[in-house]
Amino acid sequence: MTESLQELVDALRSLPSVGEKSAWRMALHLMEQDVSVSQRLSDALVDARKRLRRCSQCHTWSENELCDVCASERRDKSVVCVVERPSDMWALEKSQRFDGVYHVLGGVLSPMHGVMADSLTIASLVERAQEGGVKEIILGLGGSSEAETTAHYISRLLSNSTVVVSRFARGLAAGMDIEYADRFTLDQALQERKIVRYGDA
Amino acid sequence: MTESLQELVDALRSLPSVGEKSAWRMALHLMEQDVSVSQRLSDALVDARKRLRRCSQCHTWSENELCDVCASERRDKSVVCVVERPSDMWALEKSQRFDGVYHVLGGVLSPMHGVMADSLTIASLVERAQEGGVKEIILGLGGSSEAETTAHYISRLLSNSTVVVSRFARGLAAGMDIEYADRFTLDQALQERKIVRYGDA
Repeated sequence: MTESLQELVDALRSLPSVGEKSAWRMALHLMEQDVSVSQRLSDALVDARKRLRRCSQCHTWSENELCDVCASERRDKSVVCVVERPSDMWALEKSQRFDGVYHVLGGVLSPMHGVMADSLTIASLVERAQEGGVKEIILGLGGSSEAETTAHYISRLLSNSTVVVSRFARGLAAGMDIEYADRFTLDQALQERKIVRYGDA
Repeated sequence: MTESLQELVDALRSLPSVGEKSAWRMALHLMEQDVSVSQRLSDALVDARKRLRRCSQCHTWSENELCDVCASERRDKSVVCVVERPSDMWALEKSQRFDGVYHVLGGVLSPMHGVMADSLTIASLVERAQEGGVKEIILGLGGSSEAETTAHYISRLLSNSTVVVSRFARGLAAGMDIEYADRFTLDQALQERKIVRYGDA
């Protein structure tokens, strides 16, 4: 086993969920491809790190001072959707169902893992809310207990402002079969049920 | 979604079994790590491709004209183990159970996928057998029907030489439970059973 191949395998193991076996398979696969395949990946790695920085407004990855969403004149700056990671923001962008702007927290509060409020962009969110112009903050966080705590923490911080704070609806996912839904989802679907017709009094 | 991040995701998708979701997870993970992590992978990719070539004797990946095994004076050059890929060779090396040399075929015959004899290193193997010095060729190929065909093809090509051709034993793998063995394995275990005591005549 040669030094440079071993080094490639070790470097590939820095990718998430890539163990020794996968890293070997990847390395040998790359060796059998045209050299341009490795060159392209090598360039892309350096290039992304060199060109990307945090958007100064919403903290997502951006090639400019402001990301495309924050810089766009067609986006409604009065509605800010708070998400955990840039990937959540991109999932929402892909759905084309939201025309406001975002705020990327960088994670959720998790004292157990050393993630406190100051390792997230919470202060910057409060600042945005206080600057005026923001009417609603939608908490687009996941359903974990840490996400719930974070949502609660943020809404408490914003309790003195005039900003409306909302959170994503909970219930059955689209196309979800009731028989396969877990009891937490069923509980939420029931608790947050929507009345479709009021009975005659 | 920025251009350089999209390009990194696309480049990561050239890795085997990496789909769009994994590629995104990898890219965002790399962005959150120290820049040295991406730099190291980037360098390793270019370096491996630049420094590695095929061993002129056994065709495994090597940084020199001859790989470490072929160049070693402690290896028995009279026994050649034929394997499909460099990873098979390294698995055998790791076991430290073989002190002969190797011959990497580069795959197995598969006319359905356009892999004919001349896309493998079969001619070079026959040459090695004819050059003299080789006493035994062990076919260390897998159990697929293509591997069986390839083994059969090679042993026919060598039928005129004085070289002994053998193949790996088939049967129950170490620690394998009989109740979980598939019927092909059981069939092989039965067909190739080893007599441990001859009955008194």
